[in-house]
Amino acid sequence: MEERKQQEPTPLGDLGEFKLIEHLTQHIKIKQKTSVLGIGDDAAVISGGNASKLISTDMLVEGVHFDLLYTPLKHLGYKAVVVNLSDIYAMNAIPEQITVSLALSNRYSVEALEEIYEGIQLACELYEVDLVGGDTTSSQAGLVISITAIGSQEGDKVVKRSGAKENDLICLSGDLGAAFVGLQILEREKSVYESDQKIQPDLSGKDYILERQLKPEARKDVIHFLGKENILPTAMIDVSDGLSSELLHLARSSDVGVQIYEDKIPIDPSTINSCEELNLSPLTAALNGGEDYELLFTVSLDHHDKVKALDGVTIIGHVTDAASGCQLVSRDQKLVELKAQGWTGV
Amino acid sequence: MEERKQQEPTPLGDLGEFKLIEHLTQHIKIKQKTSVLGIGDDAAVISGGNASKLISTDMLVEGVHFDLLYTPLKHLGYKAVVVNLSDIYAMNAIPEQITVSLALSNRYSVEALEEIYEGIQLACELYEVDLVGGDTTSSQAGLVISITAIGSQEGDKVVKRSGAKENDLICLSGDLGAAFVGLQILEREKSVYESDQKIQPDLSGKDYILERQLKPEARKDVIHFLGKENILPTAMIDVSDGLSSELLHLARSSDVGVQIYEDKIPIDPSTINSCEELNLSPLTAALNGGEDYELLFTVSLDHHDKVKALDGVTIIGHVTDAASGCQLVSRDQKLVELKAQGWTGV
Repeated sequence: MEERKQQEPTPLGDLGEFKLIEHLTQHIKIKQKTSVLGIGDDAAVISGGNASKLISTDMLVEGVHFDLLYTPLKHLGYKAVVVNLSDIYAMNAIPEQITVSLALSNRYSVEALEEIYEGIQLACELYEVDLVGGDTTSSQAGLVISITAIGSQEGDKVVKRSGAKENDLICLSGDLGAAFVGLQILEREKSVYESDQKIQPDLSGKDYILERQLKPEARKDVIHFLGKENILPTAMIDVSDGLSSELLHLARSSDVGVQIYEDKIPIDPSTINSCEELNLSPLTAALNGGEDYELLFTVSLDHHDKVKALDGVTIIGHVTDAASGCQLVSRDQKLVELKAQGWTGV
Repeated sequence: MEERKQQEPTPLGDLGEFKLIEHLTQHIKIKQKTSVLGIGDDAAVISGGNASKLISTDMLVEGVHFDLLYTPLKHLGYKAVVVNLSDIYAMNAIPEQITVSLALSNRYSVEALEEIYEGIQLACELYEVDLVGGDTTSSQAGLVISITAIGSQEGDKVVKRSGAKENDLICLSGDLGAAFVGLQILEREKSVYESDQKIQPDLSGKDYILERQLKPEARKDVIHFLGKENILPTAMIDVSDGLSSELLHLARSSDVGVQIYEDKIPIDPSTINSCEELNLSPLTAALNGGEDYELLFTVSLDHHDKVKALDGVTIIGHVTDAASGCQLVSRDQKLVELKAQGWTGV
């Protein structure tokens, strides 16, 4: 048998499942007090305490949620964790553990899997979350990553989508549309590359929007400063499918209407620039783009001054009665009904 | 546009993600006291209490874990739940919630998805588990089901793999090898069918082994009667990869050796019959077959009489010191070293 050269990738089959898991998880240290038992038994053990536990799960599928042509595996692992943590923060809770299930074909090497795990571990470190369990399996087709996040919060501080009241302020962290526009740029460069592989991709000045797409962050900081300022939102949701869709969810769950203002919607200048380049409407990118992982929340009017003073949070409108529906007030003062863009299983 | 006939399958694209989830989960009722909030928000909410929480996750991939040619979708949904619950029982805990993530291509109809969910719901009802969250997404390739189960148990009653002590009795519920032999029969009939589609599959007298493969059960009953009899195992694991592999895990985690007796290993007569038909060794099927989802546990010698009296539990050997290794005593009194069969990512 030929000896393998040092730089040659290690086929997955060279390690068994148990050795593979051991290899990938050898550097993982348990840090959360609530993580009693991590990887290595039939199930992980988490201490209960009096807090409520929050559970969220998401699946990322190759060719649907990511394209490996332009997605670094490390970023992919990172993003897969972050999108789940975002759901836990969106309940005003603190994520503490995750489990990771991976299906991948034998065309991946051990080194490729290591890269995914590096991204997963990096996110775990940054967000102080323990990886406590998982499953690694083969797949005849592409790569599938399924992550479940577990969080904690005192029961009366858990914030659902359903608590928004008339006259509440509608607040949003960060800015919108960048992740969507980043994806359009990547897709454009992919087409160019496919038509002529000698052309180098032109991604200069696109750092922000590309990072928003490839390596997004969850708004841990927002949950921390809301807690610090004693602001308990009446309702909250994370922006994963676009602002319109999330506002409609929130309005429906809370049995209210919403009115937001076009000129209040935060959009980064680099998003606007790229929109012009791509001949896209920045407003459409913000309303329907998705994958921003910002937090959309409502607070009582009493909190107006405190919220207004928060860095990186914008008041974009207010809650109305259910009969008024979900409206955008355009720059020229026209009322436009908000609509969710058709979902296609992504 | 042509009107769809009543029996024609409904394409998945006819419903959006949210309508699809609503449609599939409309009959789901929350029953567990600990399930505070189910499907419909960013995350599910589970009350903590003083109990420890147990988390287990498993992924089933089309073409790797199941073949849709002979796997009814309803059974598949059922099995996907059961294999996860088995992991929770194997910690001596009671499963209370699950989340379900599904990736499937557009070639599936809404009705096919309904069948999977019927199986999921049936398992939820039988095992008194709440479906509290999930994700449904498209896939360019086959069907992937990822389930996370959450269970509860008082911290000092959680049973790990690592507590077995020298002289403990090694106990096993049910019988082994049937699920593996069932799979071989299904694969044989598939080959026959593929060579000549006019030949009807010959599955007479195979009910037991086929059910063990296609619609296995988790040993909830064993956990209940162990609790009732006040027997706290010193270590426990479920038999998913074959008895040899599980004994090696248990021995390694507990830093002990094991000795089991060939003539004590419970194998059903119909498994033995099918093994003869297929020219397989029943012992090999039992040791390396896997997917039995029986519970393998160790108890202190003090419990000998109580365990011996338990219906459906067999004492198959005892724990030795680590230096003695993992041994099978054959029918002719020879010592054979137990080996795990090579895993290939399944």
